[in-house]
Amino acid sequence: MSRVSASGAQANIGVVGLAVMGSNLARNLASRGGNTVAIFNRSYEKTETLVDEHPEAGFLPAKTYEEFAATLSKPRTAIIMVKAGAGTDAVIDELVRVFEPGDIIVDGGNALFTDTIRREKAVRETGINFVGAGISGGEEGALNGPSIMPGGSDESWVTLGPILKSIAAVAEGEPCVTHVGHDGAGHFVKMIHNGIEYADMQLIAEAYDLIRKGTGKTPAEIADIFAEWNRGELESYLIEITAEVLRQVDASTGAPLVDVILDQAGAKGTGAWTVQTALDLGVPVSGIAEAVFARSLSSKPAQRAAAADLPGPDETLDVSDPEAFVEDVRQALYASKIIAYSQGFDAIVAGAEQYGWDIKKGDIAAIWRGGCIIRAQFLNRITEAYAADPGLVALVTAPYFADAMARTQQAWRRVVVAAARAGIPSPAFSSSLAYYDGLRADRLPAALVQGQRDFFGAHTYKRIDRDGTFHTLWSGDRTEIEAVDTH
Amino acid sequence: MSRVSASGAQANIGVVGLAVMGSNLARNLASRGGNTVAIFNRSYEKTETLVDEHPEAGFLPAKTYEEFAATLSKPRTAIIMVKAGAGTDAVIDELVRVFEPGDIIVDGGNALFTDTIRREKAVRETGINFVGAGISGGEEGALNGPSIMPGGSDESWVTLGPILKSIAAVAEGEPCVTHVGHDGAGHFVKMIHNGIEYADMQLIAEAYDLIRKGTGKTPAEIADIFAEWNRGELESYLIEITAEVLRQVDASTGAPLVDVILDQAGAKGTGAWTVQTALDLGVPVSGIAEAVFARSLSSKPAQRAAAADLPGPDETLDVSDPEAFVEDVRQALYASKIIAYSQGFDAIVAGAEQYGWDIKKGDIAAIWRGGCIIRAQFLNRITEAYAADPGLVALVTAPYFADAMARTQQAWRRVVVAAARAGIPSPAFSSSLAYYDGLRADRLPAALVQGQRDFFGAHTYKRIDRDGTFHTLWSGDRTEIEAVDTH
Repeated sequence: MSRVSASGAQANIGVVGLAVMGSNLARNLASRGGNTVAIFNRSYEKTETLVDEHPEAGFLPAKTYEEFAATLSKPRTAIIMVKAGAGTDAVIDELVRVFEPGDIIVDGGNALFTDTIRREKAVRETGINFVGAGISGGEEGALNGPSIMPGGSDESWVTLGPILKSIAAVAEGEPCVTHVGHDGAGHFVKMIHNGIEYADMQLIAEAYDLIRKGTGKTPAEIADIFAEWNRGELESYLIEITAEVLRQVDASTGAPLVDVILDQAGAKGTGAWTVQTALDLGVPVSGIAEAVFARSLSSKPAQRAAAADLPGPDETLDVSDPEAFVEDVRQALYASKIIAYSQGFDAIVAGAEQYGWDIKKGDIAAIWRGGCIIRAQFLNRITEAYAADPGLVALVTAPYFADAMARTQQAWRRVVVAAARAGIPSPAFSSSLAYYDGLRADRLPAALVQGQRDFFGAHTYKRIDRDGTFHTLWSGDRTEIEAVDTH
Repeated sequence: MSRVSASGAQANIGVVGLAVMGSNLARNLASRGGNTVAIFNRSYEKTETLVDEHPEAGFLPAKTYEEFAATLSKPRTAIIMVKAGAGTDAVIDELVRVFEPGDIIVDGGNALFTDTIRREKAVRETGINFVGAGISGGEEGALNGPSIMPGGSDESWVTLGPILKSIAAVAEGEPCVTHVGHDGAGHFVKMIHNGIEYADMQLIAEAYDLIRKGTGKTPAEIADIFAEWNRGELESYLIEITAEVLRQVDASTGAPLVDVILDQAGAKGTGAWTVQTALDLGVPVSGIAEAVFARSLSSKPAQRAAAADLPGPDETLDVSDPEAFVEDVRQALYASKIIAYSQGFDAIVAGAEQYGWDIKKGDIAAIWRGGCIIRAQFLNRITEAYAADPGLVALVTAPYFADAMARTQQAWRRVVVAAARAGIPSPAFSSSLAYYDGLRADRLPAALVQGQRDFFGAHTYKRIDRDGTFHTLWSGDRTEIEAVDTH
């Protein structure tokens, strides 16, 4: 039944799991770079359908894992495209059973990077390579060119690199894929990508909401504004599709689609993972956190109904110069976006240090220029910033971004002020501004927090004028003693 | 050598681990309710020192776990007071070895509640009871009366309840201890307590910072303000000690202590745990998250140094009526505090549902009135709110708190506006306000987020006007189809 036994043909790459993402990735592989693609699915019916529907792809279908392995040339290379979780472990077990040392198993799903670290370690003991690869761009990206973030060993990259380069999106002539780092580095960076995506989307949503409430413009009119913004420094896929969504008219009511969509945002977990991981790493990612929280708040209809009558401000948003206000919002969006990316790259730096990955931050920004959800010209500025200063301690402090803050911060403040006054929720705008003002603050009231902690928990404090760790005898004579820092 | 063998005396309670918290708790136990306390420490030296320094306590020291077990009357009851982590597991193993079915092992450390769930399950299989008990109040509380949050079985509560009631803080005649719920419920609630504490402290720090920068008052003068606030609706231990800390003068420099303390706040992890857990539960705890992030931001000296020259606003905080401004800040603090508690109780409700705990929210507020760090009169209002409506979906919507919001929200907005304008970082004030405005919003831009998600990921959306799950064919003819909700 298998074509391989009849023809002797060998595939250089295989795909396991033929739901939409897997099918599209298999088709992408088959259409480029001279790849021959073996395919396997738990139910063979899906395999047959894919073969029938896409004869041009020349797929080599396999009914069993043994057949799948026999179809692949060595080193065997297979990409798993199944729903992240226990299913991934089951497929890995099967592939380990039929593969040999030197072969390469790639998990292209949205695995949590710590699972990838665990799996890589376990598979490596068999001599087989395991690569966790973040693949961004959704179904469309999988078919036409995603942004790919592979981790794993250097050895596997030798074989895998050319294959992934053949199918990745291309931005300014460069394929949107790079070897991110060892073991879980690829899935880690993909997770951060998604976290930034949450922040970016929330910021856009706040911008839309403020413009609409502040100026009374229709969604279609605001679509024009986003389309205009997409020709400037905000140019990005998310701005582009925002214009598309806002312009869409609902066929059944004639109303703007955005007005008939239920305002409860869903989430699939990678945003929350990003925040949880950043908390472990001690990195403040407040913009991403506020975006995740804004979605969960929206999805609590009972609470929202109970709170609907809570009092709001006396004033509404009174915009005297709509054009100036829209421009203020644009600048607030740009400034907040820089903060979100700066926080996201802080998390990458901290993760790389924690897990021993040699991640080139500039390369990450470069492979996000195409294929993925946060793709944008803007990312070139990040690549340039890290090229100019590889040890940059915070993206926002790079000259280009510092200049942008200088240019935008007054407008940003005006927008946060207008929102607070008029009772329009802008958690990501205001949180980003508070972060910015905290970061640049000469002196923070964290000193008082340290004093409180020393008072109630003897947690000790440090002084600005000399080394050492100190404790005030608060319940005693209130003298200060030098303390051993055990807290 | 053991006193028990000489005298035949039996202890009704034992303490394992005699660092400061354990020693103080042992002394507390020995001084009240007719308890006789067996004590054990890994190094016997510490045990001897405690016996020698506190002959009045009548401690029964044990050199080995066997001796410790023999000293305890049945059901044996022992409280472990060691640093949370692997050490706890080691002690549990030893106690399980020498204890018998029906005995009770209590972990009084700051364990992560999921560890407690795991341990309770494992220990239960031996027939021994395992109780994770959150103990709040620091070293002082351990000695003089902490707030205690025990989980574990109903059976263990029969024996343990009277003992814990004998040593707990007393608030308005009631001991600050209740059986929170089964297995990990106690440590879960203690974790939320700490998360709220983070938010409370950050809010106080922001209030102090704004008053100082807005009015030029000295820390001593601001101490007077906090002392004054402590006589009103903000009355609480944290407000009280804030006045103490601000009044403290550094002996070596003559400057206010708060000005010589390094402004980098430390953290021991329970705040981050709270946020991570809330993210798992889908509960927005933005106030707690901003507080955790504010601490981690403060502790990044290299980033802060690099960001020190980033541009700030043109204007400084210009307060024409200091008294009115201070009152605005007080109201902003109160409003933000209500939000922090409302979010914290949301997390308790969600945790109880997720883990099957029957947690009485009003009882939790009641046992927080004394002994713990967030102790306050204010908590009576929470108890009353849940008594009036046990199914209250959000604390802030209870009449008392809704009235408080009505009374304070304009001042709160003025403070957030002043901070944003003058570039004074107020992440917790502004985040709480954004949350409040989001919760009461008639319509959120989450609808746009759903539209974006449907566009790039076919994540589908729901409609306001009919049931079902829908998808627009964005890459096709842009008609809407009814979709199976798999995302």
